[in-house]
Amino acid sequence: MPADVVSSFIASIERRDLDHALSHLTDDCEYDNVPMGKVIGRDAVRATLEPFLAQCTEVAWPVSHQVHSGNLDSGVVMNERVDRFKVGASWIALPVAGLFIIRHGQIALRRDYFDRESFTSQIAAALS
Amino acid sequence: MPADVVSSFIASIERRDLDHALSHLTDDCEYDNVPMGKVIGRDAVRATLEPFLAQCTEVAWPVSHQVHSGNLDSGVVMNERVDRFKVGASWIALPVAGLFIIRHGQIALRRDYFDRESFTSQIAAALS
Repeated sequence: MPADVVSSFIASIERRDLDHALSHLTDDCEYDNVPMGKVIGRDAVRATLEPFLAQCTEVAWPVSHQVHSGNLDSGVVMNERVDRFKVGASWIALPVAGLFIIRHGQIALRRDYFDRESFTSQIAAALS
Repeated sequence: MPADVVSSFIASIERRDLDHALSHLTDDCEYDNVPMGKVIGRDAVRATLEPFLAQCTEVAWPVSHQVHSGNLDSGVVMNERVDRFKVGASWIALPVAGLFIIRHGQIALRRDYFDRESFTSQIAAALS
């Protein structure tokens, strides 16, 4: 099922196993943090995620709802999550709704919707 | 299908037919604009939407993706949209991902994820 690809990707992120996480993405994956901008391609996703995950000692993306259509060749997955990152002594908690387009068993597009200021203000407080 | 309830709700909003839109909600519906706060109950949703829709001369919520699980008795629908509102001479366009919980053919919870500042800055500009 297409949702399995997304669940495995999220589990990799939670383990901060970036290589395994990136193996779920197509070479030309579009990775869009909607209010902050997008990057294209697995290498660009690595360049985005690596320094951020390096700041985190723990990561948890609990999914409250997840629905899908299609199949592994061509599928759509959406989920509602609270993405949690431990930075220093603080837990950042960001409510997110995400869209994932699956092509041939990989994520060709991931688009996360959230409130930018909710993220940036928590990061700034955690790093201060 | 639970998605039909959501599609009919959205079509009512686009017609600015608030009575028909509200008929899709349970009496105790939770209506949550995540970064701006929630209201509970059909009457509170009316009090939220009525003055806003009165400012709009046109409304369009084109859905780019919509997926669901369950059935009309107990279902989950998520969609990705760009909610467009014409205010004065300006079109406001807000990228949104939404969650809808369906109970017995009505929307018991609607939770929209978007960037608050993207919305408030466009509204302020349109009203200035």
